[in-house]
Amino acid sequence: MVTASPLTLGVVGGGQLGRMLAEAASPLGVELVVLDPTPDCPASLVARDQIVGDFDDEEAIRELAERSDALTFEIELADPDVLEAVGEEYDVPVHPDPATLRTIQDKLVQKRALQDRGIPVPDFRPVDSREDLLEAGEEFGYPMMLKARRGGYDGRGNVPVEDEDDVDNALSQVSGELMVEEFVPFERELSVIAVKGDDEVATFPVGENVHEEEILRQTVVPARTSDEVRERAEDVAREVLSALSGRGTYGIELFEGEDGDISVNEIAPRPHNSGHYTIEGALTSQFEQHARGVLGYPLGATDLRGPVVSSNILGDVDEPETAALSGVEGVLSSDGAAFHWYGKRQVRPLRKMGHVTLVGDDLDADDESTLTDLLEEARELTDSLTFQ
Amino acid sequence: MVTASPLTLGVVGGGQLGRMLAEAASPLGVELVVLDPTPDCPASLVARDQIVGDFDDEEAIRELAERSDALTFEIELADPDVLEAVGEEYDVPVHPDPATLRTIQDKLVQKRALQDRGIPVPDFRPVDSREDLLEAGEEFGYPMMLKARRGGYDGRGNVPVEDEDDVDNALSQVSGELMVEEFVPFERELSVIAVKGDDEVATFPVGENVHEEEILRQTVVPARTSDEVRERAEDVAREVLSALSGRGTYGIELFEGEDGDISVNEIAPRPHNSGHYTIEGALTSQFEQHARGVLGYPLGATDLRGPVVSSNILGDVDEPETAALSGVEGVLSSDGAAFHWYGKRQVRPLRKMGHVTLVGDDLDADDESTLTDLLEEARELTDSLTFQ
Repeated sequence: MVTASPLTLGVVGGGQLGRMLAEAASPLGVELVVLDPTPDCPASLVARDQIVGDFDDEEAIRELAERSDALTFEIELADPDVLEAVGEEYDVPVHPDPATLRTIQDKLVQKRALQDRGIPVPDFRPVDSREDLLEAGEEFGYPMMLKARRGGYDGRGNVPVEDEDDVDNALSQVSGELMVEEFVPFERELSVIAVKGDDEVATFPVGENVHEEEILRQTVVPARTSDEVRERAEDVAREVLSALSGRGTYGIELFEGEDGDISVNEIAPRPHNSGHYTIEGALTSQFEQHARGVLGYPLGATDLRGPVVSSNILGDVDEPETAALSGVEGVLSSDGAAFHWYGKRQVRPLRKMGHVTLVGDDLDADDESTLTDLLEEARELTDSLTFQ
Repeated sequence: MVTASPLTLGVVGGGQLGRMLAEAASPLGVELVVLDPTPDCPASLVARDQIVGDFDDEEAIRELAERSDALTFEIELADPDVLEAVGEEYDVPVHPDPATLRTIQDKLVQKRALQDRGIPVPDFRPVDSREDLLEAGEEFGYPMMLKARRGGYDGRGNVPVEDEDDVDNALSQVSGELMVEEFVPFERELSVIAVKGDDEVATFPVGENVHEEEILRQTVVPARTSDEVRERAEDVAREVLSALSGRGTYGIELFEGEDGDISVNEIAPRPHNSGHYTIEGALTSQFEQHARGVLGYPLGATDLRGPVVSSNILGDVDEPETAALSGVEGVLSSDGAAFHWYGKRQVRPLRKMGHVTLVGDDLDADDESTLTDLLEEARELTDSLTFQ
């Protein structure tokens, strides 16, 4: 039975995901304490409290557990071993399961786990040496994607290998344990925000991601593809969820191949940038769903309120500087547009500083041209914003 | 020009209105510091900081001004003289205008200000003695409403005078300066949430309030009345706004008389309980509008997302006790329902502890029976919740 009384969710990480989680958790009566090394981190300004400490600081995570009714994380840099041990020590549930975090943190282990369940993934193999990479080239053909198994994000740690002569160059750009994947000539990148509840699962409508310079710029929902592909994408997302343990919101990035086939690109065991559109665009946001899921509450409805686009606001500066974004009145005075600012004190080149969501009028207008217009309109809104 | 950079709004009062203001201000990048005498007050759990102090504590308000880019208040108990002086001293804008707060705090002065502008109000007169009240009885007829000029809320400080013999009894139930109003045999109570921006005004669709035991229980929007009455109500709300100075959200309670005529009951210079429906029910919430208005940002769109009802969750206890509300899963698993909990540590008889909002599916279904069904459904949801 769900009882509303002061209830504390401890969160490892206090970036924008933690901030939007705090915004969504507050109406449910769920108060956040976040652990983050940066004082005045984005989430701390909305959370009840911040513990200043590193993501893997065992003492700090103990303090977090002591003050929390449940633990979660908003970054993959959280330490699954510490979370698991501390959760058991303090008898505080941790969601998603630290074992899931451990699986996902290592892209090779992640891909193997999916493959073992019969979930479609691009061909891959571990790379322990130059020879391994050359062998992969013979097997997969070029180009291929060389990937650091751990710690990459926003395209960092992913390097294309164009041909045999490019092998040494590619290897010089990554460090740590490596893997390589065949290049998937995809039609588009899709993403499904999927939520595991206590004994239920919910998926949001399939989104389509628009990248530039390896960074997610925009998500449009529903994706501009066929109903069949959307259904296939949702099915795969549900299979992925069934392969992972632990409640909460997951971001599942997929490739739609040239024949409409679906394969899994990457999984995030947390709310995802491509799900920010749910705040205004769906009946329940991915952040509220995460809080509901982690706490074992019933999940909310995932229906769209209309066709919707989210556009990231990225740092358009050459050097780090104090953040001050101009031009916001254009967004604020556009009907159907919502402005989200993450409260970061410093802007850096291409840093995610906020986003704009634009919800279209017509619930049924999911034809391609309407969605393309919405994408353009949203892009114009974010392009009108500048830190310079 | 609107620039997003860390920006602090200082708020006198840290109750649920401050909390929902903090929730809505965060995406705009607006951080709250609240002044409230109760540690861990509802807003403090979402605001960046709380200053613990009385609403009229001049030193505390100085500290608030020192840390803020703009000042506002979420309770009428704020002291307009102190706010005015401190705002000038620290060159920090105060919205709404302290002069407006001063006018509204004294119901007699409020009614006179409206009457002077030709805005329809029930007949009224000051009461300085028993004789004044008896004279009013001869003029207005019985029943009449005897009102404390200051400090009443949720019906407290309002006493009906049934007949001449009831005069002494009525007088014994109120204290301080008094006024009396003719009794308006109203068809229904309407309310309009209206917002003053920098050089614009916005009104939300007209709501209808359902009271019980003098306390607002539910608001249904649009109101179950004719288009003509709705238009008249909006016109009167706009006239009220033009009579008041200072930006921000105002709650304007109106009577719809038996002939469809509109008169002003009371004005709140702040977001209002009858506007909570805007969080999910409208494109922009009354709280976001308040932040936008106070800061001089463009106002957002006020269109409805669908027919909508909000229902208050009131303390159903006989004595104050630690708050723990059971039965929340029923609300969480209802499609279209949203749960709002204010985080109050203690429940008291009839205390406002939270609310539930229910948005209907059909944008165009504003016929009376649909709205009545929605009212009943929302009422069942809140009735299923209990502190006992």
